[in-house]
Order: sequence, then structure tokens, then C-alpha cells
Amino acid sequence: MADTQATCPMESHFVRGEHTLKVPMSLFRENRERLAAVLRGNTAVPEKGAFVVLQGGVEVPFNDTDISWPFRQESYFQWCFGVEEPDCYGCIDVTTSESILFFPRLPAEYAVWQGTLYTTDDFRKRYAVDKVYYTDEIADVLSERGASVLLTLNGLNTDSGLAAREAVFDKIGQFNVNNTLLYPEISECRVIKSPREIEVLKYVVKVSSDAHRAVMRTVRPGLAEFQAEAAFMHHAYSVGGCRHVSYTCICGSGHNASILHYGHAGAPNNRVLKDGDMCLFDMGANYCGYAADITCSYPANGKFTEDQKMVYNAVLDARNAVMNAAKPGVSWSKMHLLANRVMLGGLVKGGILVGDVDQMILAGLGEVFQPHGLGHLLGLDVHDVGGYLPGHPTRSSEPGLRKLRTARTLKAGMVLTIEPGCYFIDCKLDEALANGDQAKYIVREELERFRGWGGVRIEDDVLVTETGVENMTDVPRTTEEIEAWMTVGRNSKLPQECKFSDA
Amino acid sequence: MADTQATCPMESHFVRGEHTLKVPMSLFRENRERLAAVLRGNTAVPEKGAFVVLQGGVEVPFNDTDISWPFRQESYFQWCFGVEEPDCYGCIDVTTSESILFFPRLPAEYAVWQGTLYTTDDFRKRYAVDKVYYTDEIADVLSERGASVLLTLNGLNTDSGLAAREAVFDKIGQFNVNNTLLYPEISECRVIKSPREIEVLKYVVKVSSDAHRAVMRTVRPGLAEFQAEAAFMHHAYSVGGCRHVSYTCICGSGHNASILHYGHAGAPNNRVLKDGDMCLFDMGANYCGYAADITCSYPANGKFTEDQKMVYNAVLDARNAVMNAAKPGVSWSKMHLLANRVMLGGLVKGGILVGDVDQMILAGLGEVFQPHGLGHLLGLDVHDVGGYLPGHPTRSSEPGLRKLRTARTLKAGMVLTIEPGCYFIDCKLDEALANGDQAKYIVREELERFRGWGGVRIEDDVLVTETGVENMTDVPRTTEEIEAWMTVGRNSKLPQECKFSDA
Ligand SMILES: [Mn+2]
Ligand SMILES: [Mn+2]
Repeated sequence: MADTQATCPMESHFVRGEHTLKVPMSLFRENRERLAAVLRGNTAVPEKGAFVVLQGGVEVPFNDTDISWPFRQESYFQWCFGVEEPDCYGCIDVTTSESILFFPRLPAEYAVWQGTLYTTDDFRKRYAVDKVYYTDEIADVLSERGASVLLTLNGLNTDSGLAAREAVFDKIGQFNVNNTLLYPEISECRVIKSPREIEVLKYVVKVSSDAHRAVMRTVRPGLAEFQAEAAFMHHAYSVGGCRHVSYTCICGSGHNASILHYGHAGAPNNRVLKDGDMCLFDMGANYCGYAADITCSYPANGKFTEDQKMVYNAVLDARNAVMNAAKPGVSWSKMHLLANRVMLGGLVKGGILVGDVDQMILAGLGEVFQPHGLGHLLGLDVHDVGGYLPGHPTRSSEPGLRKLRTARTLKAGMVLTIEPGCYFIDCKLDEALANGDQAKYIVREELERFRGWGGVRIEDDVLVTETGVENMTDVPRTTEEIEAWMTVGRNSKLPQECKFSDA
Repeated sequence: MADTQATCPMESHFVRGEHTLKVPMSLFRENRERLAAVLRGNTAVPEKGAFVVLQGGVEVPFNDTDISWPFRQESYFQWCFGVEEPDCYGCIDVTTSESILFFPRLPAEYAVWQGTLYTTDDFRKRYAVDKVYYTDEIADVLSERGASVLLTLNGLNTDSGLAAREAVFDKIGQFNVNNTLLYPEISECRVIKSPREIEVLKYVVKVSSDAHRAVMRTVRPGLAEFQAEAAFMHHAYSVGGCRHVSYTCICGSGHNASILHYGHAGAPNNRVLKDGDMCLFDMGANYCGYAADITCSYPANGKFTEDQKMVYNAVLDARNAVMNAAKPGVSWSKMHLLANRVMLGGLVKGGILVGDVDQMILAGLGEVFQPHGLGHLLGLDVHDVGGYLPGHPTRSSEPGLRKLRTARTLKAGMVLTIEPGCYFIDCKLDEALANGDQAKYIVREELERFRGWGGVRIEDDVLVTETGVENMTDVPRTTEEIEAWMTVGRNSKLPQECKFSDA
């Protein structure tokens, strides 16, 4: 068994090139220490011999081929260790916070394909952990250290309904395994971001903001939606070092802006923008595992019509109201309803709705025009964990509120999206018009011209501070700012018109 | 059961925007007809009641989250049906070549997330098949049609060692299933490309060639390797409509050019190019499922040194020799040896090796400097199926030849890569120097200055014609062409230096 003594290594980093953020490995050490401290405070954890055991992500082949999806680390493992390679394990000694990583023992000939193989000591320095061994040594290492209980990860993701991957290894049967303690504790740790995590989130949100700005200057009638996706990813990767996006880019124009998950395989951002369209572009990069999630809505031709301004400002007012009201101690469900109230109020002013806004909300009009929650926790996952942990409010069954990915009370250190929207979705409108309780608030003849119009979403990524929220997003938001940004410095040619000059 | 009568629908297409290739759905109908005709000629298939049954690809979630990898269709299913959506099934009536697709029956509320749900009739027109039903109707439809045997897909991919995904559905147990007949027949059909398939392959190879050209004009010392990856993907997507690359981009500079699968998660193209480096960039886009696979090697600063020219021309001569000799009836293994011979001959001229080239090859020197095969079949998979089908030469155990992904005799309609290379890989060189049979051909003192130098690969995508091969790739290849291309129209700024103008 290779034994690599821990010394204090030179600080090592996650970095891309020389122009992107250096993320110190101490970010992950601090995460581990936070987790270990919480577990030491849990009376169900023995004073000695408890080890957190996590299994890292594995490479996923594209069907039966020898090509894999570009690897990204599993998020709990990333949060603890920041390891870029697949097929690893990691342990934390709860008593001492000591960290141990296990890497696969690769055959020597892999060097031809992967480059010089790292030794365990190389990995120890690279990831600034205390010990590194090979994965075939896990059982022996844990035995020698007198592990009395292994804390493994088991729990359901409340957004997907899927279970976390619980660590398994050869001879784990020799150990006493507890798979219930860890999940809520580590998930709660992930909810509150550390200063170093916030630094990374601010970076990836800034990179994504700049990429949105670049897209806005590329957009014009004649552009295909996917060319906006391509421009975003290029800017995020080339300038920001973000190899991955946090989710499939949603680049809806015209009617497509009302399709909440547009951009999927069956509708792959392949419409051409038309003069008069609204665009709704929801895109976020990923750096060192950390996600951004930003939506910008604006006219394809760079100039708002009166109708476009009316709907846009209804949503912008909702966003501003939440931005001003959100702070520690405030319920996220209340913020959702506040956004609905302001947005519906804007539609009343715009003449599409008529009547009392609070009554409309009781009748379910909020969900008709915004069939999604106000926003969600954001971190290593774009829909980050911890939305419905034990001890916090459960999911509501009320219209609108039931769509929320969390109903928690805000706390300093949380990072969330604020993303009110207003959409004209045929099936939702038809349902509402057929429902007397809802139809009575709708001015049919006014609504008609918004059929096929699309929708607006304004999505910002915010940090909850001690006194309110700090908006990390930096994109033009008022109609005046948007029109100014899209006028100055606008790209004059479509990408397919840019030919190579003769050689 | 929804019954949608087949009429002759307007030709429908796979297309992106208005500036990318329109791929007619008849490409897939012709593939199905080719397959059905071959199966009708197979005496083990009954005259009536035999149905090919394929299961399409499924969405793959990123661990336990609600985010999935961007969906790409499974390749056998794509070859038969060209369907963009996940979770489908498809059948072909072998007797009549009639085609039946089955789509998931989605709850009405999915329209909010996915857009207006297509009817079975919409899908029938979109994919130009004879019938469309829902997946919960498969057993009933096949029963009604009197299916006497279902031909399902079962076989090992000879590159990955992984098994194809055999179709399973509720009540498949009612049917007589044969899972051995289909795999070799459909794989052999995929080996020979139809004129329409060739049109798509030529398009994706042209798009990838142009993307390589764009990268060459971006490359300069100071650029990070991943910025070349970003530039390639941007050009391929924005101009060519290629949402996916066919494999993770390999952007090795300097020493990294000698790492065959550089660019993987543990070595993610994150070195900064230096003056004097050679670059080896292996990147290929994907359009409508069809893959390109092109490698360009050139100096980071755009000007070859004498050593760089010597190694580059040794590889280019090998490539030209194969390009001239390859034609129907020629053994691919012979082409591999020809390439090795010419390349090693170049190293003799360059003074790194000394002695008889044929003797060197017998001693295994070919694999020392090029530890991979000359090239591989190319199609819907970048390492396409059919390399080692029954009735064709089996994999050799000889050095060099054992690395080949196929040892077949060339046939008109095959598409392959020709990708000779020469690399200075420390562990391979150390092995060779420690082996008297190999070391005697190596001029140690000359070799030493190539330690850490990297490598060269020249990879073209060719179509085997009746009389030779047609190179579909269109990039600068001679040192003069490369130097000229990299001088004229070169980008003057690094991407991170391009700031937004003030708004
Ligand atoms: Mn969001
Ligand atoms: Mn290749």
C-alpha cells in the first residue's frame, strides 16, 4: 500500500489558461471542514472512527461506443474535493477533518493515451488533501484507521426524484454503514455558500453576463436561434474558461419564447429570428463545477414595441419588487406571490387583465401566466440541492407555489435565482378561458393579439447578504439600457456571411 | 389505438436555420430499404412476419440531477429513422420495408415545457415513415400484423467492447425474438455509405475543415489550447449548424501533442501555447448524426523550423503514399504498413533512425513512433461499426497492426480516416531504447532533442471510390500552404483581449 505522508503543500488551484479565475484548493478543504464540524455536532455520530465516504462521478459512454460525454464531476464529490478526474473515491475522517482521496490504479500503457500518469503524491499536492491511495486500497485503509462507521450518501433529489449515487466498493460489507445521516447534513452545508464559493459564483455569473452581452450584440433578424447559443458558449469558454454550460441553452424567439424548456433535442433552437420577435435566452456557464443561470429577454431588432415594453416592464417591476424585499428571514413563497402580484398588476395596467389582483392569485392566474417558480437555489447544480430538506417548509399544493423548487426562509449566504416571467402559452390560456373563475379576469379581445407572442423572463443570480440581496448579474435590464446596448457596437454581419479572406 | 394512414408526404428534412444542409428523410428510407433487402436475402429470415425492432436512445441525466447531457440519437436508430427525439422505438416490416415509429405518449401538460405536442400524424409527416403509434402500443401493433419473429440488435462494439442496447418493451415475451441475425447485417449495411449519406459526410467534413481553417488563423503563442477548442466548436455550430462534436476535442501543444487522447477531463486543453511549439489539433463536428474526424498539425507561431518540417514531411509523405495507393481490393493492414514504412523512412532521412526500414518494422519500430492504427471507418460513429465483422480479417496480434480498428479489404462506398502520425512519447522511447532489437536503429543523440517535442498527426477523411480514394477534407496540408494560410488574415488579438466597446 502506497503511503504518502501529508506535508503542507504549496497552494494549488483550479485554473484555465492564465486569464481565468484561480480557484484555490482550500475552497474544498474549507467545505470539508464545515461538513466535519457539523457531523461532530451530530449526537448520532460516534466521537471516533466515523468516516464520510463518497464515490466520484464516472465516465458515461455514448451508448455502446468508445466515446463518452465530456466528463464533469458529480456535485457532492466536487464540493468536497474539487477533483477533475473520473472514477475516484474520497473519505473524510469526521474526528480530525483529515481527507483521503483514492484514484484508479491505471496500467502503465495508459500514459500513451492520457499522458504521464500521476503518482499518488502528485495527486496529493494537486488537490491539497492529506493522503492519497489507489481505489483498490480503500477497505484496507479504512480498516487500518479503525473505521467504526462509514457515512454514505443516500437521498432523493427533490427536483429530479432521482437518488444520489451511494458509494460502494469491494469489501464494504466488512464495515458498519450508515446511509441516512450524511445526506441532509451535507445538503444543508451546500445551501450556505462560503466566501470562497461566492467568489467562484460571482466569477461564473460575470462571465455568463458578459457572454449574454456578446450575444445581444450578435442578435438581429436573420440569425438562427442556435447561433445565439453558439456565440454564448464560445464567449463563456474562450474568455471565461468555461468548458461546460450548466444546462442546455434555451434560445426561444417569437412563439418559442413561451416554451419553458425550448432548446431540447426535439426543438433544438433552430428557428430563424424575425423582425418584431421577442427573444428569451436562458443560458448559464459553468466554472469549476459552479453554475450560473441567467435569462435575458429583448426584441430581435433591438427596439421594443409598446406591447413588448408593457409585458417586459410588468416582469421587470416584479423582479425589482423581489430584489428590494428579499432578505434574511423572508419566506421565498411570499416572494413568489409578491412577484406574481406585481406582474399581474402590470397586465391589468396593460389592459389584458381586469379586476382585483389578490383575487386573481387566489383563482390561480399567477400560474397561468407564470407556470414556474420564482427561482431556485444555485450552486454546483443549477437547481441546487437543499430546497426541501427536513425541518423546512414542505412543497405547497397551491397553484404557482407548488412549482417552487424551495419554500425556505432566506438566510445570508444562500445564492438563488430571481426569475419572474410572463408567457402566453396556448394551452394555459385555453384552460383559463374555459374556467369561469379565471376567465372573468381576462380581457379576451386584448389577450388575442398576444397569442403566439412568446414570453418574457428576467433571471438574475443573487446572493443573500445580512441585509438584503446582492445581484451578481451584470446585464442591461431596463428597456433603455437594452436598446442602447443593442445599438452601439452591434455586429453587422450574420456569422454565415463572414467568409475567409483569400489566402 | 391511433391509426395514421400512410400517404405520400411532402419530403421533409433535417435542417438547421436556412444556411445549413437540408438532409432529406429519404436518406433514412433508403437505409431501411437496403437493410430490408439484405434481410430478405438471408435464408434464416422467414418470408413473412419478420420485423426489425430497434429501441432509440434515452436521455442520460447528469448523476441524480434534473439536467441531462444534450441528447444525441443512438446510431443504429439514427441510421434507420433519423429521429431527433429520445425514448422512441422503430420497426421495419422486412417483407414490405414498411416503417413504423413509436413515440412516447406525453401528458398534455408537457406542452408547457416542450411546446405544442406533436400528434402521431405530425411525426409521420416529419419523419416520412409509413405509420406512427405510441410506445405503449408496440405489442398490439406487432401482434395485429402477425409478427412471427422480432429481429433485435445484439452484438459487441469492437472498439469499446460494449454491447448494443437490445430493444425491450412490455409484453415482448409474447413474441419469438431472434437477436443474432440483425447485428452483422445492419452493421455491414452501415459500412457502405449511400450517395445521400456521402453527401452529408462531405458536408460535415467541409464544415469541420473550415472550422480548422478558422482555428489556424486564431492560433498564436499566448492562446490557451481550449481557446482553439472553443473557436472550432463555435465555427462548426454557428456556420455549419453542428450542435455536437463527434468526440472531445484534442488540442495538444508542445509536449501535449504526443498524448493521444489529450483533452480528457484530467488534462482539459488548458496549457498556453508557446513560441516554438508544434500544435496537434484533432477535432470533428457532427451533423445529423454523421461525424467528421480531422487532425491538423502546425507550428503555434505559423512558421516551421527545420526539425518541425522534417517530422511533418515524414508524416505527410506517409499520408500521400496511402492516398495514392488506397483503392478497392487493397488491404487496410497493408496500407498501415505502407504508412509506417514511409514515415520511418523520413526519420532515417532526418537522422533520427538508421538502418533498413523493413527490418525496423519487423522489430516493432512502427508502433514506437505511431502507437495507433492508420485509420478507421467513419460514419454515424467516429469509430464506425463494422471493423471486425464475421467473414472479414480478424484483429492481428502484431505490433502496430494490433492497433487497427479494422483490417478489412477496401470497398467502394467505405469512408475512412487516413491518419498517420509520429510522436515522441517518453515511455515508448524509453522502452525502445531499453530493447536491443529496437535500440540499434535509433540514433540516441539525435533523438534526444525531440524529447518533449510532441508529435504530428495528419488526418483526412476519405471516400473509397471505384478507382481510388477521394479526399473530402479541405485544409492546408503542405508546409507552404500552412505557412501561407497562417500569415494572411491572421487574427491579431487573443480572445480575452477583445473587450466590449463602451455602450
Ligand atoms: Mn433558472
Ligand atoms: Mn480518427
